[in-house]
Amino acid sequence: MFEAKLSEGVILKKIVDSIKDIVTDVNIDISPNGISLQAMDSSHVALVSLNLSMEGFEHYRADSNMVLGVSIANLAKVMKLADNSDAITLSADQDATHLKIVFENAKNERTTEFNLNLITIDSEHLAIPETEYQSVVTINSNEYSKICKELFSLSETVQVTTTPDYVMFAVEGEVGSGSVKLGQNEGNQQADQTVLEVTEPVSQQFALRYLNMFNKAASISNFTRLCLHQEQPLVVEFKIENLGVLKYFLAPKISDE
Amino acid sequence: MFEAKLSEGVILKKIVDSIKDIVTDVNIDISPNGISLQAMDSSHVALVSLNLSMEGFEHYRADSNMVLGVSIANLAKVMKLADNSDAITLSADQDATHLKIVFENAKNERTTEFNLNLITIDSEHLAIPETEYQSVVTINSNEYSKICKELFSLSETVQVTTTPDYVMFAVEGEVGSGSVKLGQNEGNQQADQTVLEVTEPVSQQFALRYLNMFNKAASISNFTRLCLHQEQPLVVEFKIENLGVLKYFLAPKISDE
Amino acid sequence: MFEAKLSEGVILKKIVDSIKDIVTDVNIDISPNGISLQAMDSSHVALVSLNLSMEGFEHYRADSNMVLGVSIANLAKVMKLADNSDAITLSADQDATHLKIVFENAKNERTTEFNLNLITIDSEHLAIPETEYQSVVTINSNEYSKICKELFSLSETVQVTTTPDYVMFAVEGEVGSGSVKLGQNEGNQQADQTVLEVTEPVSQQFALRYLNMFNKAASISNFTRLCLHQEQPLVVEFKIENLGVLKYFLAPKISDE
Repeated sequence: MFEAKLSEGVILKKIVDSIKDIVTDVNIDISPNGISLQAMDSSHVALVSLNLSMEGFEHYRADSNMVLGVSIANLAKVMKLADNSDAITLSADQDATHLKIVFENAKNERTTEFNLNLITIDSEHLAIPETEYQSVVTINSNEYSKICKELFSLSETVQVTTTPDYVMFAVEGEVGSGSVKLGQNEGNQQADQTVLEVTEPVSQQFALRYLNMFNKAASISNFTRLCLHQEQPLVVEFKIENLGVLKYFLAPKISDE
Repeated sequence: MFEAKLSEGVILKKIVDSIKDIVTDVNIDISPNGISLQAMDSSHVALVSLNLSMEGFEHYRADSNMVLGVSIANLAKVMKLADNSDAITLSADQDATHLKIVFENAKNERTTEFNLNLITIDSEHLAIPETEYQSVVTINSNEYSKICKELFSLSETVQVTTTPDYVMFAVEGEVGSGSVKLGQNEGNQQADQTVLEVTEPVSQQFALRYLNMFNKAASISNFTRLCLHQEQPLVVEFKIENLGVLKYFLAPKISDE
Repeated sequence: MFEAKLSEGVILKKIVDSIKDIVTDVNIDISPNGISLQAMDSSHVALVSLNLSMEGFEHYRADSNMVLGVSIANLAKVMKLADNSDAITLSADQDATHLKIVFENAKNERTTEFNLNLITIDSEHLAIPETEYQSVVTINSNEYSKICKELFSLSETVQVTTTPDYVMFAVEGEVGSGSVKLGQNEGNQQADQTVLEVTEPVSQQFALRYLNMFNKAASISNFTRLCLHQEQPLVVEFKIENLGVLKYFLAPKISDE
């Protein structure tokens, strides 16, 4: 038996919205400690990993491990029934054929229930090795989103370079060549801060198409963390306050073309 | 001779906008008592009925009955010339070949005139029988619109069920099954109120496609009234303050498929 | 050597945005006195003319005349990298192969640089004769934009008529016929003013398609000036405060069809 209630249901709405363009069908892993999922995007280039701790829920109970196969597109449609102020409760029986989703809104005595059909998905769980990242950059999510979006109209690939003083996003293409450089910066307001933790400079190229897809998650966290290592995939990390973390993994492009 | 002036012209703009996706060409009936129209949608499933009382107009004069055949699409284009703060005057001669529409805006000395060409439309007037409805539900228009819109992404059909305690909108489809339940509710704020007047419970199925089309009219009234009778078409009613009422009639679906 | 810095970079963004749908490749003329460009639209019906005075720049230096051939579409993409609060610096070497564009934002220590590739464009410079216009009409840009936009759904052509008392925009088509008349008007607020300077009444027809394209520039100026002469093309003028002027020239349509 599984049951989890989140008073701020809007967070779950945003999470589903963030990943629905990247993954289609996905196994949600329920454990006594929390909810997690891991899935490759359809072209098997990027990996999404979500972890929600049981402690972030108002109420959480999972008697044993369970796997719930879900169509994210369908889940997203159901989530749209929720108001941003609704509390959301998820539940399932042990031999579940559906995931029960309940939205409650005290304000106008509205209760929405949905039994989402579950599906069977073959999937392997990838072990993600623990990595000491050489450079970790924390940027305002909206600012970082805007940079990736506008650079994509100029080039398919971005070169991300870190130094102790700045992080640089550079493009080169038909139109010309250019870069956006963000300096270490305490900012006047915390929201504008860019924080660089660089033990080793890194310079790698990534497909902007994927970075832009990841940035759908900008709405769940004010800050985006980029974790870089010259020999490892990039991790783009969105902290979900009091609840967990959403991570995207993306392998670097080897050559420019 | 017909002439009618409405100081709050924006209301007329919204009415035309509400019906322009449902009906194409329509006869507008002018009488000494007011303006009315009645039209089937192009697939002959739904009926639109509008009644505007002469008392709601700043100035109203109609010497005798007249029928003005109008392309609603064209009327909507002309209405777009009006500012929301414009007063609107409609007029026509007895043997009218066009409807004269004048928009006036004192603020910036702008006057817009348009002579809309009239057309000849064959149409029969349906007599709508007076019905004692078994259930009448009054819901905040925006909330009801949102429910219909989101349910449509999950199913083509909605089952509407009333009881003395709640009204329920249920769907069933490939994705799963679910329902939105709204309880009788005085609400903290009047805008959130759901009012149920149920003398006899009703349960009927309707095509969400049509309910969604009707909801274009949500902008003309804060509340939507659903009038239900087990043996009768649904009436979706939007009161137009001090001026009249816009009603949509929709026959229930007999079987689920 | 050329270098020009504009602290309010947003103005340059808006100018590029205003003209990018009308002209494709264009020669930008740099002189010690300022920046200018002149270009026909792709169908050779309308002419765009931009003049920016060196005095409007925070810093301006041009040792001699230069011609910079630029793809406006690409320039627009680069401009999107700028925040509205960024300062913009343009620079080029004498034998330039690219235009260097730098955006600076003190707030969060972001610096964006782009080297836009230049192109070679054959173009002739048209001499625009000085004209004493018979009628000059100054209208609120948003109001004038709205009029042109809505009339376009009713007709392809608008008849513009000036008298000492009003300016009239008239259309005639399948839907019917009508007009918007704006009277000389001091307005309650300056923004609503319509100012007529009519030494000779003018009545000419213009293609609304072009007037609507010009109105992209409404964002750079609160007022649009229409300069009319019965024997001359229309000039639609947008003043750019402290910096210069953007003008569009459009020949009248001779017959109604």
